[in-house]
Amino acid sequence: MAAAVDPERSEWDVIVLGGAAAGENAAQYAAQFSGLESVLVEAELVGGECSYWACMPSKGLLRPVEVLNTARHLPGVTSLVGENGIDVDAVLDRRDAIVNNLSDDSQVRWAVDTGIDVVRGYGRLTGERTVAVTKPDGSLRTITARHAVVVDTGSRASVPDIPGLRAARPWISRDVTHLREIPRRVAVLGGGVVACEAATWLCGLGVEELTLVHRGSALLAKQEPFAGELVAAELEKSGANLLLGRSVTAVRRDEVAAEAGVGIAHGGPATLTLDDGSELTVDEIVVALGRVPASDDIGLPSVGLPNGGYLDVDDQQQVKGVPGQWLYAIGDVCGRALLTHMGKYQARIAGEVIASRANGGGAPGGFAAELSTAQGHRAVPQVTFTDPEVASVGLTEQAAREAGIDVETVEYDMAALAGTYLLREEYTGRAKLVVDRATDTLVGATFAGSGVADLLHSATVAMVGRVPVSALWHAVPSYPTPSEIWLRLLETLNRNRRLGSDA
Amino acid sequence: MAAAVDPERSEWDVIVLGGAAAGENAAQYAAQFSGLESVLVEAELVGGECSYWACMPSKGLLRPVEVLNTARHLPGVTSLVGENGIDVDAVLDRRDAIVNNLSDDSQVRWAVDTGIDVVRGYGRLTGERTVAVTKPDGSLRTITARHAVVVDTGSRASVPDIPGLRAARPWISRDVTHLREIPRRVAVLGGGVVACEAATWLCGLGVEELTLVHRGSALLAKQEPFAGELVAAELEKSGANLLLGRSVTAVRRDEVAAEAGVGIAHGGPATLTLDDGSELTVDEIVVALGRVPASDDIGLPSVGLPNGGYLDVDDQQQVKGVPGQWLYAIGDVCGRALLTHMGKYQARIAGEVIASRANGGGAPGGFAAELSTAQGHRAVPQVTFTDPEVASVGLTEQAAREAGIDVETVEYDMAALAGTYLLREEYTGRAKLVVDRATDTLVGATFAGSGVADLLHSATVAMVGRVPVSALWHAVPSYPTPSEIWLRLLETLNRNRRLGSDA
Repeated sequence: MAAAVDPERSEWDVIVLGGAAAGENAAQYAAQFSGLESVLVEAELVGGECSYWACMPSKGLLRPVEVLNTARHLPGVTSLVGENGIDVDAVLDRRDAIVNNLSDDSQVRWAVDTGIDVVRGYGRLTGERTVAVTKPDGSLRTITARHAVVVDTGSRASVPDIPGLRAARPWISRDVTHLREIPRRVAVLGGGVVACEAATWLCGLGVEELTLVHRGSALLAKQEPFAGELVAAELEKSGANLLLGRSVTAVRRDEVAAEAGVGIAHGGPATLTLDDGSELTVDEIVVALGRVPASDDIGLPSVGLPNGGYLDVDDQQQVKGVPGQWLYAIGDVCGRALLTHMGKYQARIAGEVIASRANGGGAPGGFAAELSTAQGHRAVPQVTFTDPEVASVGLTEQAAREAGIDVETVEYDMAALAGTYLLREEYTGRAKLVVDRATDTLVGATFAGSGVADLLHSATVAMVGRVPVSALWHAVPSYPTPSEIWLRLLETLNRNRRLGSDA
Repeated sequence: MAAAVDPERSEWDVIVLGGAAAGENAAQYAAQFSGLESVLVEAELVGGECSYWACMPSKGLLRPVEVLNTARHLPGVTSLVGENGIDVDAVLDRRDAIVNNLSDDSQVRWAVDTGIDVVRGYGRLTGERTVAVTKPDGSLRTITARHAVVVDTGSRASVPDIPGLRAARPWISRDVTHLREIPRRVAVLGGGVVACEAATWLCGLGVEELTLVHRGSALLAKQEPFAGELVAAELEKSGANLLLGRSVTAVRRDEVAAEAGVGIAHGGPATLTLDDGSELTVDEIVVALGRVPASDDIGLPSVGLPNGGYLDVDDQQQVKGVPGQWLYAIGDVCGRALLTHMGKYQARIAGEVIASRANGGGAPGGFAAELSTAQGHRAVPQVTFTDPEVASVGLTEQAAREAGIDVETVEYDMAALAGTYLLREEYTGRAKLVVDRATDTLVGATFAGSGVADLLHSATVAMVGRVPVSALWHAVPSYPTPSEIWLRLLETLNRNRRLGSDA
């Protein structure tokens, strides 16, 4: 269902190139703070990667795995769930419901109701404030923006130049979030968030032989080291075979499907050759080796920018190097933080800034202008929905030290709390704070454990609010909840300080 | 196992009257910040009500009920758990393990390892810094404190003067947390936290006819109104019969057990007469009608205080009206906030203050002295582990207005979030912020919903850190987690402000 946009219309206040979650937010904010009229230009589904292909379906697959895992470790429920595997059909049906069966009707309806137009097609910049849209029928439509163009074209999975890999038609993230049958043997290539989450649900959904091949020596290498170690241990417990410090040198797949549909078999067995000469035969290969910005075919040279790469933006999300204050970029394509919530944050800022500038620089009426946004851009939270979950914000100790910050750190075992003891048997977890000595405020925090996703926001608030550690001590966590990790961390920090000053 | 305390010893630096969680913390802090030697005087179990009779066993009973409820509403797991009731024996066994089968060996060992002595017996003040302990054998032992006595005698369940009620030997909170068999018909008297939590686990464990009788018109009356409404709706869904605005005028139980052991049948059927003249026959009555301070038999008159009642303390937990800076009170008996975590907070403060004063007023080396503790005492968090959970901190709108604070408020449906939609089907919840217009900071926050317990700490940090609302906007919640309620609340608040200013 397309919105009823006047097919002759050629001008809007704001053009959003790419109608993903962030783009929708930018248009919404520009509208609500200044009444600006926007149009979303989208070639696929309005709502974008996150709604249909990434966050939502992946969490939809992971949640039943997590709950079943908890049930299996909680007397009173354990005997009820028995030894049977998860109900795969029900999980996949729910996943389909979560992505609205790949229909963007409701998103389009939201846009129309919000006063935002939708133009279907593939958009490319052709000059200042001008976008050419290639419509589904192949015809071209040129539209212009009175005030701003916001680029929200996102990113796409990167498939590296390994001999035979592309020809073998591996699964990318879209396939593994949309799997329709469970392969018996799977190789997951990668060790970051996508690889670890996919390995978690694949094991949970019944893959018999899962092998994760990762060039690095640790999983989740951008997190505190204990996070990857805990996730690795749990993956191994659930039957995964982890080959760390290993890479794939060649792939051979004799029988490749003529039409490689999303999430179904892409051919017959494939054999991977590893850098130690060993071979591994699997039924499907999942490539989770990072993403590249979708910026190499959106007309950047027409506005004086190099083709491809991340779009460099300032704290108002304006693209650097383009005069006239009209070009903004948000979401993955600006490369600041490849996370939906940060894309939406950038979108809110861009929307407010565009509204303000359209008003001649008047106050936008929102919150974006009230505080230097630098702190918000720094306190980037991320949750990896593995077992255990890994929730972090800000810098790791290593990143802080590399940034030249004089930090002290403290760690504590999340399992040594009444609040986690109650949650389930065999709870594993760990937490860490990274404190800037100069200001006595947090520069980073990491929580690994079952159910820590919402505990994280306390650390984000502490960072953004620059709440000193000495004040955090007066923020009492409820007993008996996992939040008491704060008490233990701060007590330990204080003890370390006294021991240090005694020494 | 009692600790090996020299039976002749008669003097310590600090005497703690009542060795519950808070008392342990006060002794620990006095020791670690100033090397003070403490003794815990305890007539029952070291570790106290919370460890053995309240928080821990109740959460141990509630957690499997919660997880089973989630499993029943999550496709993929639902078909595995089937229609069978919860495995009651396994739940009760785990409850027993959680309370260490009512042995305080590990707590005593912790005390000894921490350098804290334990004297078994019932203590009463007999004058300044002096306590007489009636030992289990009935003999008396008088001990004195060089620096301080800390009263942590807690509270006990209140059983009101309803004709026939006491004679019917109703269950109190200790019985319902330690139930050993599931009565078929139960009446729960009360509508506060204990009543609502007990009704939740009783229904979950298979009570066939549960009737909750509450004098007030709403459950959880100290919370925002929607909290009690949501909990009432879920209790009714799980089969409870709620009689609100009703009270019991008389109780008749013909057959009363000669020895009314904890958590077993206290007799035959009991008939309650209600204020509308109707009758209700049940197998057990649970009285959850509040608590009274355990202060009417601890020798208060010997130090010039009235007997009984809450002990009035200042922000350093020193009891008002007693000269000499030697008497402190913490936990339920001081009446500030009848919550274990607040008792422990008060204990940390008292411990540090005692340590500091013993050092001649020097810096105690902890955090207590670094900030006015007033903000910590104000930002009292509380989690009620019902379905939905209710987590709140600070003041409700009504309490804030009664305190003369000019507030604006905002509410949002917790079910209208991607993060809660993923958790389970039929998610219900609601959230509210209460903002002080003068300072643009939070004075209260409430979250009701499944799994909000750890989300609460973000609001506590915001309150204690006095983080302005405009800065909270830059604390980005992770997508897709329930934490995004913050984004929706703040967006709605901002919209309300603009609409208000337009009007």
